Amino acid sequence: MTGPLIIVNLKAYAEGTGEQATRIAAAAREVAEESGAVIGVAPAYTDLGIIARDYDVPVYAQHIDGVTPGAHTGHVTAEQVRAAGAFGTLINHSERRLTLAEIEASLTAARRCGLQAVICTNNVATTAAAAALGPEYVAIEPPELIGTGVSVSKADPGIIERSVEAVRRVNPAVKVLTGAGISTGECVKIALGLGTDGVLLASGVVKAQDPAAALRDLVSLL
Amino acid sequence: MTGPLIIVNLKAYAEGTGEQATRIAAAAREVAEESGAVIGVAPAYTDLGIIARDYDVPVYAQHIDGVTPGAHTGHVTAEQVRAAGAFGTLINHSERRLTLAEIEASLTAARRCGLQAVICTNNVATTAAAAALGPEYVAIEPPELIGTGVSVSKADPGIIERSVEAVRRVNPAVKVLTGAGISTGECVKIALGLGTDGVLLASGVVKAQDPAAALRDLVSLL
Amino acid sequence: MTGPLIIVNLKAYAEGTGEQATRIAAAAREVAEESGAVIGVAPAYTDLGIIARDYDVPVYAQHIDGVTPGAHTGHVTAEQVRAAGAFGTLINHSERRLTLAEIEASLTAARRCGLQAVICTNNVATTAAAAALGPEYVAIEPPELIGTGVSVSKADPGIIERSVEAVRRVNPAVKVLTGAGISTGECVKIALGLGTDGVLLASGVVKAQDPAAALRDLVSLL
Amino acid sequence: MTGPLIIVNLKAYAEGTGEQATRIAAAAREVAEESGAVIGVAPAYTDLGIIARDYDVPVYAQHIDGVTPGAHTGHVTAEQVRAAGAFGTLINHSERRLTLAEIEASLTAARRCGLQAVICTNNVATTAAAAALGPEYVAIEPPELIGTGVSVSKADPGIIERSVEAVRRVNPAVKVLTGAGISTGECVKIALGLGTDGVLLASGVVKAQDPAAALRDLVSLL
Repeated sequence: MTGPLIIVNLKAYAEGTGEQATRIAAAAREVAEESGAVIGVAPAYTDLGIIARDYDVPVYAQHIDGVTPGAHTGHVTAEQVRAAGAFGTLINHSERRLTLAEIEASLTAARRCGLQAVICTNNVATTAAAAALGPEYVAIEPPELIGTGVSVSKADPGIIERSVEAVRRVNPAVKVLTGAGISTGECVKIALGLGTDGVLLASGVVKAQDPAAALRDLVSLL
Repeated sequence: MTGPLIIVNLKAYAEGTGEQATRIAAAAREVAEESGAVIGVAPAYTDLGIIARDYDVPVYAQHIDGVTPGAHTGHVTAEQVRAAGAFGTLINHSERRLTLAEIEASLTAARRCGLQAVICTNNVATTAAAAALGPEYVAIEPPELIGTGVSVSKADPGIIERSVEAVRRVNPAVKVLTGAGISTGECVKIALGLGTDGVLLASGVVKAQDPAAALRDLVSLL
Repeated sequence: MTGPLIIVNLKAYAEGTGEQATRIAAAAREVAEESGAVIGVAPAYTDLGIIARDYDVPVYAQHIDGVTPGAHTGHVTAEQVRAAGAFGTLINHSERRLTLAEIEASLTAARRCGLQAVICTNNVATTAAAAALGPEYVAIEPPELIGTGVSVSKADPGIIERSVEAVRRVNPAVKVLTGAGISTGECVKIALGLGTDGVLLASGVVKAQDPAAALRDLVSLL
Repeated sequence: MTGPLIIVNLKAYAEGTGEQATRIAAAAREVAEESGAVIGVAPAYTDLGIIARDYDVPVYAQHIDGVTPGAHTGHVTAEQVRAAGAFGTLINHSERRLTLAEIEASLTAARRCGLQAVICTNNVATTAAAAALGPEYVAIEPPELIGTGVSVSKADPGIIERSVEAVRRVNPAVKVLTGAGISTGECVKIALGLGTDGVLLASGVVKAQDPAAALRDLVSLL
């Protein structure tokens, strides 16, 4: 992949589950084809297989457990999501925190199955720690921007800049996503201007009346 | 449903994921049709939709989170598994323990979506507590029998009998499954003789060379 | 003990830690002596020993882990708090939720060490479940009252009444505390009028300018 | 402090709780005075204050929660253990794992209160991640050595050496402890020879018939 990465996290939103999930995936495919942007979606596990099969977009799991196949009731393995067609996975999202040992185990599982790994973090220090583990991406989600509707353009951009610096210092091979405060093309432009390689967002697209229009706006200034 | 209930938990076993999962589901359907027994399967989330669509067996989620649809990345809602075709769900399996508040919230979510609920417990006291919540089933998994290969017929049956008594005292509408130590038809017969209404098992079927033969043995003495 | 029980939870408040904790304990002792009421305090683990040694009040741990002495770094055993002089313990407080299996194990540990057990719950169903375990007390903390400053007298009292009924039905030997929404003597009177046997409260006393005056008000209508 | 650091973790061992804890602390003080070695102890929270007051040894908490003083029932704050006389704290011990965000928050809390921080880790990658957070120490506990009685001298020393290298690459100001597989002076010598700055151990001292003799052996080859 080249160019910035946009990942749309469908979370457990009613507007992003079941048939609604395919609506978002169709919009992602459509806008990706029009614009040349790379747009991935992270659906519910139960929707993962259908989207991976029917839509030509990178599909991410929202979480995987760092275990090998075996007696792990109610867990989700890298093998399961890979078999269902996943391209990558989020790890340690702010709504699904893991221990440090689990993050590392999940990353190891992702590598074992060839899944691209995006580790989510909450500040500069944890971003540096996550970068030391060597995933493809870290996604920095400053708590003051999560779900608040505050744009990264309005908030103090320092946390994003210092996170990018910390990653470059610890492991320059790791790319960075801006993981909160993104709702418009202007936000995406600012996020990339701060040195990040893409964005992770959710409600701005999933809850939009017209997800394709919301995505078109997001890529409009690339 | 009438008659005893047999639930086969596919866990995250390699032998029960992806195409292997459909192999188990096919065996469950076949033996259920032959014998008249009720045989459910609890597959990975990623396999749930295909099995529910293509096989005429009751499908159970291995776990659900007690949340309503919304911003819950990496969680599994009752709505998601219901949309994928689930008939019921396990709650609080020994490999996926929940807080008491979460168990109650998961049960409430199951009811909201019309899912049959099977709450797993580890001893007489927790079985009584789970029964007080009023699920369709509790499944008692004595730790000394889990994954040990020890048959319920060889172990002290007192824990099962006292669990059944406790459930009848607290809430007689709740049915009880024997949730560990089951591998043969003899085990099933003993479990039912102790007053339980069925069994929850995993490796005995999932890891069998011939799952249909294993299931046939399980129902042979009904 | 006879008469209603008042437990003051010092949480991790700055106003209830170290020397401040002894200030609250002194007030509890003073008002208990004046009024004949039973007033316990639940301090930090680090303050437990001094308060139990120097103040003649029932001392509760805020939480215990349901493990036996052994290799459990960073855990708190019933044996530890008993050795420090604790009379009882809270279990499953809303700020320290446990799995059902852990609640039962903590209760077993409390019994092993002769500690009075107070299991906290969040609604009618979980109160019934906790009562089935058979602790000395359950403390019902309705989420809509926790830390909101809303008095139990102003809120819908139905949840308290139905919790008391559920406990009587499941295990009438278990006593009930009203665990949220208590700040004045009027609240205590209402809580007892709803059928509960006492109250569990925190900030109303711990953050008071004059804890003894706050306690005097609480017991004023007994 | 100069010279290697030896931390004796009393865990929740019966042999290290209450009066038994003071027996270990007395041995630590005695051998430290004799040998000039730095020997710290990590007792139960309930024993922390007495040991810090009566014994001239560095006292460590076994865990702290990364919260500020407030409504955190059953939590342990840096402020509480500091008030009780702690010199430092373990964070993320293998028996008390934390999320990455919690580790960082606990470290921040330790700094706020002037506590020396020792973050425990399980392999090379998590050691690098912990080092990126910048604590005074990381303690590497290879799972294959924890509680097995296998000496670090007998096991593959590569994990320790690569952990030391990883720390030097990420943050050379961070010191490293060998956190498992230590029972004799020979083990300590090997651990230091592999580039670590000390050891974290438990049962070898706590369960010894004569803790002072065990400690004397540990420091005998320094």
